[in-house]
Amino acid sequence: MPKISNKGLEMPESPIRKLVPFAEAATKKGRKIYQLNIGQPDIKTPEAALDAVRHHDIEVLSYSHSAGFESYREKLAGYYQKTSLPVEKDDIIITTGGSEALLFAMGSITDPNDEVIIPEPFYANYNGFATASGVKIKPIQASIENNFALPPISEFEKLITDKTKAILLCNPGNPTGYLYTKEEVKQLADLALKHDLFIVSDEVYREFAYEGAVHHSIMSIPELANNAIMVDSVSKRYSMCGARIGCLVSKNEEVIATAMKFAQARLSPPTFAQIASEAALDTPQEYFDEVIEEYTYRRNLLVDGLEKIEGVKVAKPKGAFYCIAELPVEDADDFARWLLEEFEDDNETVMVAPAAGFYSTPNTGKNQVRIAYVLKKENLERAIDILEKALKQYNK
Amino acid sequence: MPKISNKGLEMPESPIRKLVPFAEAATKKGRKIYQLNIGQPDIKTPEAALDAVRHHDIEVLSYSHSAGFESYREKLAGYYQKTSLPVEKDDIIITTGGSEALLFAMGSITDPNDEVIIPEPFYANYNGFATASGVKIKPIQASIENNFALPPISEFEKLITDKTKAILLCNPGNPTGYLYTKEEVKQLADLALKHDLFIVSDEVYREFAYEGAVHHSIMSIPELANNAIMVDSVSKRYSMCGARIGCLVSKNEEVIATAMKFAQARLSPPTFAQIASEAALDTPQEYFDEVIEEYTYRRNLLVDGLEKIEGVKVAKPKGAFYCIAELPVEDADDFARWLLEEFEDDNETVMVAPAAGFYSTPNTGKNQVRIAYVLKKENLERAIDILEKALKQYNK
Repeated sequence: MPKISNKGLEMPESPIRKLVPFAEAATKKGRKIYQLNIGQPDIKTPEAALDAVRHHDIEVLSYSHSAGFESYREKLAGYYQKTSLPVEKDDIIITTGGSEALLFAMGSITDPNDEVIIPEPFYANYNGFATASGVKIKPIQASIENNFALPPISEFEKLITDKTKAILLCNPGNPTGYLYTKEEVKQLADLALKHDLFIVSDEVYREFAYEGAVHHSIMSIPELANNAIMVDSVSKRYSMCGARIGCLVSKNEEVIATAMKFAQARLSPPTFAQIASEAALDTPQEYFDEVIEEYTYRRNLLVDGLEKIEGVKVAKPKGAFYCIAELPVEDADDFARWLLEEFEDDNETVMVAPAAGFYSTPNTGKNQVRIAYVLKKENLERAIDILEKALKQYNK
Repeated sequence: MPKISNKGLEMPESPIRKLVPFAEAATKKGRKIYQLNIGQPDIKTPEAALDAVRHHDIEVLSYSHSAGFESYREKLAGYYQKTSLPVEKDDIIITTGGSEALLFAMGSITDPNDEVIIPEPFYANYNGFATASGVKIKPIQASIENNFALPPISEFEKLITDKTKAILLCNPGNPTGYLYTKEEVKQLADLALKHDLFIVSDEVYREFAYEGAVHHSIMSIPELANNAIMVDSVSKRYSMCGARIGCLVSKNEEVIATAMKFAQARLSPPTFAQIASEAALDTPQEYFDEVIEEYTYRRNLLVDGLEKIEGVKVAKPKGAFYCIAELPVEDADDFARWLLEEFEDDNETVMVAPAAGFYSTPNTGKNQVRIAYVLKKENLERAIDILEKALKQYNK
């Protein structure tokens, strides 16, 4: 029997998905599960996007340009310009989800054994993309006590070697909900310029900032033009996770030219999804206002609810729709599985994502979970109630 | 300024796309171009597929399963079973185009510096996927005199080292149009079993076999169950290149489990395109009968036309919709560019793909071009006429 690659063996399993078999078994037993584990919003996709696809007039579903529809890139540049970012059509490559933009960025700037510094906890699939690219992640721990703010720049400097190619950020953060301040982004920019590093900034939650907090994009710093690569996606902004449309944005022409070679090898991003995404740009501001209001409400409900549970510590998120909570358990992995396999309250239970999978340092975050507040009020309230009861029973 | 990766620098430019700027300049001058360079069929996409998307009832465009809709995989397994292949739903991972299936296959079975043997000329983007994966391609030259039949197995054996992980085939072949015989597929299977190698078989043109020729899938050999990985796509079968839906198929559970980790890291394949692809499976046989009849006609028209031009040699294709032609020129790259930059006949010209980009051995196939017969009768006739006139003028 031929052998699987070492790379394949090392590919991490998604921490969000590895509980799925237990959830399926619980569902089969007739148990209702409140899913706090996955960032799949219940928010409706804008009608403009869905309608554009309904009214397509395609006769031959042909390849599009490898960088995506020119009309879409033009309009998308306009969207960034409205938030004062100096992005032009030719700075954009449309990708198959933010995932592909990350892969193109990694491929364009790193070789096997190169290093990328990432504040942890971080989006778990960065581990997968790094393994796929043969790149080493050098984590810097952010702490729940600080709401997962940027660790001191001196900590970054300690990790920089001649193998270091980039710093990877998620802003606002998944799984932390942390929104970097203008000063923090500036500090990172100075560091990148000093050491000739790229900053890859995953800004797929850029619209999700609460209580008037302002999002500071990596593209907002003119001096960083050659160092900055922004990753974006329509998935969360328009509740269009299934479209699989994202983009890679950079003012560095060499980065764009290189990423384009990766883009050409895979031919083009999906056509129907580009139609939907281009139309989604016409979504009225009221849609976002409502969505932000809803998420702010949910966030407050969740954080207040969790803080009332004995032994639970929460980092209050300023953006995205996740938070990390420390639970009064030793092993959140075991607890999450127990919730699905053994616990029930009135035949209902909850599903959470153990946070250890969002850390790259072994044995870290073991008593933490990531909670996505993507459920509506009644369900979220009930889920918190179940979690409280479960913790009591688990700790008996 | 931070540095691009070596991988990025080494990524080959697509030979099909590198003439595009010259074509754009020619178009600006008002020149009409007959595109024989790209495998974008003019055939209409089946109505069933286009209609299914028009009638979608999605409210929240959410992620699908990372392996693709279960209903689609079930139905797709049925499609393979109809051609007597023992494929079950769980042997299939739906991918974003055949491209992604190739990347998942490479990632699952190769590590950087591993080797994959490929008969050349081959689909140019294999070079890109190999570079992206850090894998070395070991080419074996097939010859135009033999219609690009399988080179002798002894040639493969000479190349096998302890770094060799797989043999990659395209059957029917792009760019050769060659359809491997049952005996050739059997020989490769024996070789793979003897040396514990994977065979990755790119069968995206499996429906396109002419004059009653039979396609022999790698999945048809029971003994090869653990060694065979099939790559497929809806792009050509249903003229749905823009959908970006393909699949990776294997009976080897370890391969599927590993490829699933790559699939989970990128979350899911595009939803609208899956809706279209699932519906496309209901396309009536008459659609294919008509398409095959049309391509057979075009193939004959092209091959007969080319053979009449002095100094042109053609390998008559038995499948797919490409052929390689040897032209009476020294450098087909220069000729192809000249066609766009300098030549015109009644303000019209043609675009061909220089074949050197389909070879991995340097300085090979320099007097060859790949011609895609994706144009309708009148246009194809006119394109051959232009090519004949151009060759005369170029060689003056």
